[in-house]
Amino acid sequence: MAKTTSTPASRPLRSTAEIPLRPVGVLAPDAGTHTGRIPLGHERPRALDPAFRPSAFAGESVPFTATAFREGHDLIGVHVRVFSPSGHESLHRLTALGDGFDRWSVLISPIEEGLWRFRFESFADDFATWAHAAALKIAAGVDGPLMRMMGVGLLTRAAAQKDRPAAERRALRAAAQSLKDPDVTDDDALIVVGDRQLSAFFTARPLTSLTTAGPTRELLVERERAGVGAWYEFFPRSEGAVRRKDGSIKSGTFRSAMGRLPAVAAMGFDVLYLPPIHPIGETNRKGPNNTLTAGPGDPGSPWAIGSTAGGHDTVHPDLGTLADFRAFVRAAATQGLEVALDLALQAAPDHPWVTQHPEWFTTLPDGSIAYAENPPKKYQDIYPINFDNDPEGIRAEVLRIVRLWIGQGVRIFRVDNPHTKPVQFWEWLIATVNAEHPDVIFLAEAFTRPAPLLALAQAGFQQSYSYFTWRNTKPELEAFLTGITGETADIMRPNLFVNTPDILTEYLQYGGRPAYRIRAAIAATAGASYGVYAGYELFENVARPGAEENIDNEKFEYKVRDWAGAEASGDSLAPYLRRLNEIRRAHPALRQLRGLRVHYSDDDAILVYSKHIPAPLTADGESDTIIVVANVDPHSVRQTTVHLDQTAWGGTPGAPFVVEDLITGSTWTWSDHNFVRLDAFFEPVHILHVRGTR
Amino acid sequence: MAKTTSTPASRPLRSTAEIPLRPVGVLAPDAGTHTGRIPLGHERPRALDPAFRPSAFAGESVPFTATAFREGHDLIGVHVRVFSPSGHESLHRLTALGDGFDRWSVLISPIEEGLWRFRFESFADDFATWAHAAALKIAAGVDGPLMRMMGVGLLTRAAAQKDRPAAERRALRAAAQSLKDPDVTDDDALIVVGDRQLSAFFTARPLTSLTTAGPTRELLVERERAGVGAWYEFFPRSEGAVRRKDGSIKSGTFRSAMGRLPAVAAMGFDVLYLPPIHPIGETNRKGPNNTLTAGPGDPGSPWAIGSTAGGHDTVHPDLGTLADFRAFVRAAATQGLEVALDLALQAAPDHPWVTQHPEWFTTLPDGSIAYAENPPKKYQDIYPINFDNDPEGIRAEVLRIVRLWIGQGVRIFRVDNPHTKPVQFWEWLIATVNAEHPDVIFLAEAFTRPAPLLALAQAGFQQSYSYFTWRNTKPELEAFLTGITGETADIMRPNLFVNTPDILTEYLQYGGRPAYRIRAAIAATAGASYGVYAGYELFENVARPGAEENIDNEKFEYKVRDWAGAEASGDSLAPYLRRLNEIRRAHPALRQLRGLRVHYSDDDAILVYSKHIPAPLTADGESDTIIVVANVDPHSVRQTTVHLDQTAWGGTPGAPFVVEDLITGSTWTWSDHNFVRLDAFFEPVHILHVRGTR
Repeated sequence: MAKTTSTPASRPLRSTAEIPLRPVGVLAPDAGTHTGRIPLGHERPRALDPAFRPSAFAGESVPFTATAFREGHDLIGVHVRVFSPSGHESLHRLTALGDGFDRWSVLISPIEEGLWRFRFESFADDFATWAHAAALKIAAGVDGPLMRMMGVGLLTRAAAQKDRPAAERRALRAAAQSLKDPDVTDDDALIVVGDRQLSAFFTARPLTSLTTAGPTRELLVERERAGVGAWYEFFPRSEGAVRRKDGSIKSGTFRSAMGRLPAVAAMGFDVLYLPPIHPIGETNRKGPNNTLTAGPGDPGSPWAIGSTAGGHDTVHPDLGTLADFRAFVRAAATQGLEVALDLALQAAPDHPWVTQHPEWFTTLPDGSIAYAENPPKKYQDIYPINFDNDPEGIRAEVLRIVRLWIGQGVRIFRVDNPHTKPVQFWEWLIATVNAEHPDVIFLAEAFTRPAPLLALAQAGFQQSYSYFTWRNTKPELEAFLTGITGETADIMRPNLFVNTPDILTEYLQYGGRPAYRIRAAIAATAGASYGVYAGYELFENVARPGAEENIDNEKFEYKVRDWAGAEASGDSLAPYLRRLNEIRRAHPALRQLRGLRVHYSDDDAILVYSKHIPAPLTADGESDTIIVVANVDPHSVRQTTVHLDQTAWGGTPGAPFVVEDLITGSTWTWSDHNFVRLDAFFEPVHILHVRGTR
Repeated sequence: MAKTTSTPASRPLRSTAEIPLRPVGVLAPDAGTHTGRIPLGHERPRALDPAFRPSAFAGESVPFTATAFREGHDLIGVHVRVFSPSGHESLHRLTALGDGFDRWSVLISPIEEGLWRFRFESFADDFATWAHAAALKIAAGVDGPLMRMMGVGLLTRAAAQKDRPAAERRALRAAAQSLKDPDVTDDDALIVVGDRQLSAFFTARPLTSLTTAGPTRELLVERERAGVGAWYEFFPRSEGAVRRKDGSIKSGTFRSAMGRLPAVAAMGFDVLYLPPIHPIGETNRKGPNNTLTAGPGDPGSPWAIGSTAGGHDTVHPDLGTLADFRAFVRAAATQGLEVALDLALQAAPDHPWVTQHPEWFTTLPDGSIAYAENPPKKYQDIYPINFDNDPEGIRAEVLRIVRLWIGQGVRIFRVDNPHTKPVQFWEWLIATVNAEHPDVIFLAEAFTRPAPLLALAQAGFQQSYSYFTWRNTKPELEAFLTGITGETADIMRPNLFVNTPDILTEYLQYGGRPAYRIRAAIAATAGASYGVYAGYELFENVARPGAEENIDNEKFEYKVRDWAGAEASGDSLAPYLRRLNEIRRAHPALRQLRGLRVHYSDDDAILVYSKHIPAPLTADGESDTIIVVANVDPHSVRQTTVHLDQTAWGGTPGAPFVVEDLITGSTWTWSDHNFVRLDAFFEPVHILHVRGTR
């Protein structure tokens, strides 16, 4: 069994509005209807399909929201009752958003990992209804004595409640006495009605009636890394690879790749993702630049898995042994890096499965096994698995393989092209593995349409690649960032990779070095998870003609890079990446998926967003607010006015505040409307910390 | 028991893509997962909350849609299997919308009333997958023999299926023979692959595998009037009221009001809605213009129900007897008018309930009964009901009253302010009444926020008043029309009243006669249901200062109007309303809630929308398309270009077509981009029929 993160049992969650725990009390009769006495609806967090459950990561700021209203003018309140996996029960008061849609919300950050339960409770807020009416009516000279009499009744009822502190009960009795006292004028009675301490008593312990309980729902809370992390991808065969005198290249190994770990760790990354480390097929091996014929020294694509040396359960002999791999994983851990392994369920024609289990592939009427294809194109170095011929057999084998790598210390799998395999299979696999090892994380490389992307997330993938690479203009990024941090965040956690061996976008190809800086800054600050594929820091921006990926692609070749030389000559983005990751570590707002708000600017290329986490949700009890202002046009100098809605971080509209640019150290006094000038060739992005937070 | 509309058992529905009924065949194993083998999701029609069921009206064009996709490149198909209340089963093929979101849809129009069931089925479309690959690969010279061999297998498998007509099986065998024949060239084989008749065979009876069945869901189908109708509201006490020589007014009666029925029927209305017809309270009766003191001749508000003469089960003595009421209902029916009665659950202080059942109200600590109020305002002519003191007693009484009026021939209730009573109560009442009388319709006067409006609709109200009166500008109307015809149409059917005794909008107050024409034309064409309150046709547009309702409001006074005189002098909108209702009767597209598409125009006040119903869904098998172009600025002459997306009605972009203005009789040849000039003072709205439809 996997080790689970220990959590102090006394503090399994944080909340912006936790109130003393009380039993629910008398429930309103349900009348045999689907509608409760005080209707509740659209309860979140929730999955797209109610058959599935939503999820969150430990420490995530999760909005618990519901629609609730009652007939007429009387006021209501809404609680959410939350049960941690270990059985800790707590109660939280929701705030009306006042948006006209009767939405209520509270932010809760679950810390304990496991399956949580929660239930919304709506109720008539008898004190608030009275206080609202009494304030208006007494001031208007209407029904003063009656309103005071009603107040005496409510305050006396509250004062009799045994779960209130003695001092509070005394204060309630005193307030009742004032309202009752004929010598107390209506003006003085109004002071009692509007008393803040009194209303705070009732916020914490409301006088409820007509209480309506919604259904109890589940929320799966996974470890923090399921949602938060800076990823780095490298090919171990390139790290420590050496160019021989004859021009041929000697493969790197796990041992030689260890030499690169300190530099990756020094850049501040959390996860090191390795493309497949298994033997590579020889039949129909691809050559450089995806050509059909490989030369004798060409290593082939690591995704063409399997040869006579073995399949998915084997390490490529050039990389070393299983023991070497374990040593690599340990060395990474020493540097604070978790290793993520690729899980690519497909086979090269030489894979042992092909002879041992031909039923796991598609045999065509001519007796041949079907290659992967996108008609009329064929990919003759790969056989796709047919999941329908022997589903039980395939499941058992994949489970065996995943368990094997878990046994070698792997807890993160980056799943190659999950959308080319049945969603049903993944739902089963992830549930089965997580039942044994709740700390195992699966990242879906679901570069596909929205429906399968979301279905895979809903089925259990802890993370997904996203459309980030193809969202480069300001309106594209505004829609993208608003989308990923909205309702889909209840099931999908995007990992904002800036590039991959398969993706070198036009923006990077033609945007020059500023483009690399801009994209890294946005990914690292907007994404709770983001990733970089090695070579990004060297601004490798030449594409194979007609393709959206690097020329002389590492998928088919060894890459010998001079990391240190580039950094020494100032030609590396590594220092910038290091700074971005430092900022991420210092600022909890950036380690959140949600809490992002897009703000306006008057320029069509100046993107503005803030990220905020309120004080009650952070480990040290301090709030954190970051404002990012990015010039997303890498060819220009732009100046414009940025318009901020300070309520996004609980600020006061119109108030001044001091921001510090965490990249340059400059500070400015800002307010709602602020001048900015961003030179793409100098510093295209402000990452501004709002002083006084943290 | 109520009479139900008879339906020919052989034709309980219409569909744009009904295919021969077949059993589902072998289902893919479900693997113990929530995800099916070929995932299905977001199935519609559906309610907001899955605990409730969606509804439709008989003859409604209902989109049955689902998200469906599979892994990889193989093609799929989607069916919906539909079961009518009487058990008729049918199968319908969905079309991929091709919008990138993997949505599939088919339009079905249920005719039989009652509770339908439906279930989506997704499947691998083996023929389509082969035909797609074969067309590309044979043309590219890749795997020609193999693709032909696979085709032979598929065609032979299909030819063996017993449920195919003999001619089809012969054609399939012949096609297989061609593919097998070495003398048939690849070019000729491609003709077989692309043969339309062959592909039609497989559209109707696909070769399926991996079939996945979604859950079976319900759809309540109610009678047509639940969704379609032109409503007219009058106060019976005003119809036939006579001004005496002393200036006082003698109340109209049911008998005198009968005299107005032929004129209402002649205008083409379907439903006549009467404000409450019960005795009116005398205590605190309101005088003219909502003043607090009524004179001896002031009749009071019909919504202040109850006096010593009786309550909700009684007819106001001034109007006549229960027998007179029945005669009125019969007379209306003779004119083709259904009578809708007001159901206003509140009491005047004189209501018999107040003494017999004080527990149905709220007794205050000073022993008084609480008036209706919106603090600090009080409405001293009305006691609101407290639904929580004796819920069983109140339910029994309301049910008794509703049954009583059903017994008098009423089948439609317009419910006053339902949002000031518990949603739970309405869910119970409507379910209970509809269980006895499925033909009874409740219209919610839910002028409230979106959440309660939708909750009431979801809880069972057949119709709702809407925000139409406050949506007057082009962008407001575009958003409103798109909204009401979208997903909420699965639960909410808006009735687009143009005015009510409570609502005389600024647009009508200040827009002059053109405003009345514009609003009526939009309501009658955009709304499957719409309504007019008497006096609209006389352009009564003077408001009580500071209020959004008519001065000298009929709620508090008798109105003696000269309908015939106004029409004779050309000062009546009645002829225009008559024409609108004629057009509605002639055009089934206008008797649909959905099938509306907003189109662009270059002017900020020229609103454009089309309504369309395809041929298979109409009673006579002819399609119908209407294009409405409205100048919503009542003070101007506007000319602009209207840009139409002809695909909205299955037309061909760029093709010319002839439109006839159903108001003026003018005809024009139109295409995608069309010049219009609309003079608000002449004819502000084109209602264009696309010739060749109908």
